[in-house]
Amino acid sequence: MLHMSTRRRVVSIGIDLGGTELKIVAIGDDGELLSRRRVSTDATSPRQVLIERIATLVAEIRAEISATSPETMVVAVGLAVPGVIDAPSGHVEFTVALAEDWNGFAAVAALKAALSLPAVLINDAQAATFGELTDGGGRGYRDFVCVTVGTGIGGGLVLGGRLYAGSRGMSGVLGHTTVLPDGPLCACGNRGCLEMVASGAAITRAAKTRLTGDIGASSCSDSYTPRTVAEAAIAGDAVAQEIYAETGRYLGVALGNVVCTLNPQAIVVGGGVSQAGELLLAPMREEIVRRTSVFSVERGGVDILLSPLGSDAGAIGAARWAAKQRQGATAT
Amino acid sequence: MLHMSTRRRVVSIGIDLGGTELKIVAIGDDGELLSRRRVSTDATSPRQVLIERIATLVAEIRAEISATSPETMVVAVGLAVPGVIDAPSGHVEFTVALAEDWNGFAAVAALKAALSLPAVLINDAQAATFGELTDGGGRGYRDFVCVTVGTGIGGGLVLGGRLYAGSRGMSGVLGHTTVLPDGPLCACGNRGCLEMVASGAAITRAAKTRLTGDIGASSCSDSYTPRTVAEAAIAGDAVAQEIYAETGRYLGVALGNVVCTLNPQAIVVGGGVSQAGELLLAPMREEIVRRTSVFSVERGGVDILLSPLGSDAGAIGAARWAAKQRQGATAT
Repeated sequence: MLHMSTRRRVVSIGIDLGGTELKIVAIGDDGELLSRRRVSTDATSPRQVLIERIATLVAEIRAEISATSPETMVVAVGLAVPGVIDAPSGHVEFTVALAEDWNGFAAVAALKAALSLPAVLINDAQAATFGELTDGGGRGYRDFVCVTVGTGIGGGLVLGGRLYAGSRGMSGVLGHTTVLPDGPLCACGNRGCLEMVASGAAITRAAKTRLTGDIGASSCSDSYTPRTVAEAAIAGDAVAQEIYAETGRYLGVALGNVVCTLNPQAIVVGGGVSQAGELLLAPMREEIVRRTSVFSVERGGVDILLSPLGSDAGAIGAARWAAKQRQGATAT
Repeated sequence: MLHMSTRRRVVSIGIDLGGTELKIVAIGDDGELLSRRRVSTDATSPRQVLIERIATLVAEIRAEISATSPETMVVAVGLAVPGVIDAPSGHVEFTVALAEDWNGFAAVAALKAALSLPAVLINDAQAATFGELTDGGGRGYRDFVCVTVGTGIGGGLVLGGRLYAGSRGMSGVLGHTTVLPDGPLCACGNRGCLEMVASGAAITRAAKTRLTGDIGASSCSDSYTPRTVAEAAIAGDAVAQEIYAETGRYLGVALGNVVCTLNPQAIVVGGGVSQAGELLLAPMREEIVRRTSVFSVERGGVDILLSPLGSDAGAIGAARWAAKQRQGATAT
């Protein structure tokens, strides 16, 4: 009896702090999703406001879990942020997606103080990639690339069965690879970044410029979002279809380069824009195949699949990453 | 005395089988280069002719070494080939740089039979990368990329201190990454491959089209080689200078993409064309920096250096790889 009562289920909490939405999940070490919430966030909020928001949400989730599953114990928290992090020190080094006071912020120390729980920091795209590895489309692959197509474009790498973060934790910056050397100027200073021509933001921009008729419920150009453009394309709008085909082709150019560089087994495509499914994936797949004929099917090819986790991948990955770090497993 | 006489120096032999030249080295396990030869090869020779050529050269080198250093013992041979290899079976899977009968050839079995020595097969660009890791510009880095700019363009990756060959041994195919989506058609079927616009072959093509005056010792356009174009540039020819600047910029676009994808500590540049030094590296470096501002110096940047091994990197790496495989060390 004593033995039974001391065997509590270990749970970790993952938080994906996006520009417009905060996603939070609680996962058991057996992989069961125990709780899942989404709340709107204002990315321009000062860091202290967001940390307090997170602390409230974590407390609510802990109360909810212990009410329904008294045998559980929350042991770790992982926070995924859009930006460059320094994992050893737990600092956010550089972000443009959050308020300026996040730059240089000792986020791990702040979380630990606010939550009284062990906490880790991870880049959001790498968190999504780790989520795909543990619970998503990457299961069964030792070498895969994850690309997240949302407002911006991020990525992450799993090589030899492990998340590969690069020499300074900044691998997978696929949104700033060049697909058009003389293309439009990006905020990063480069021309023709993938993010400038194939992100959700690029789809919205292209729609505002090129779509003339009404789409969706409103005739206001504010109604142009990647989702409404996808709906218009499915409803037969030729311009909307061409916008998605172009987006897919540009993604195919960039991912073809990734295939030539890394020879992965698979590419897992996630993020909000990927919800368009074959509208995006068909032209993308065609472009990758055309540009990587040396990696033909008879030499293994590359599997291209939609993320089964969708926009929860980051929060799930952050929770799993926190659990893994707590176990003291070495992971690079 | 007995103890002394049984302590023989262990040596491995590396062979880099190129399209025009065969390089062969013998290296002690202490890193000392004991022998080094280069002979012209005809890439169109049938495989049996080349295997016999290799067997003769290896026998000569063994005789030379045992004459000068009787305490040595050759224990392994590594063969680097330009193409896709299947390491577990020791087959060459696919090559366009050698005679057609190399496709599907059980090269390791043939070498073992011809040499009576353990033998391993490795891709030539990956061999050069491994050579840079053990004896060249990659020493001291855990994460670096090697790019070899010769007649064609190859590459290799060292991640976490190990050669990373990709899921099917085909990582680092940098010559077929796209730098101009609508650029010139490559033999691989893609448009705008790096190799089409920035290789030694591309420099020669550009010179034939755009250089009008005499360069080098002859006025015949056959005298246009990457070396004579470099000499013309150094002598002040503006067109030749522009050809090298363009080559460097295209390499910078492709390597900028590699930096964004992998966040390496360093890029080691080798191959015959890299002998042009700053003529090539200055515009390349400038382009990489311009296209990867997110990887600024304060966030580690990326070191860009010339290979100190030059065109011996492949043979040295093949020898070192053979020695490593013999030690039974696991390497991926």
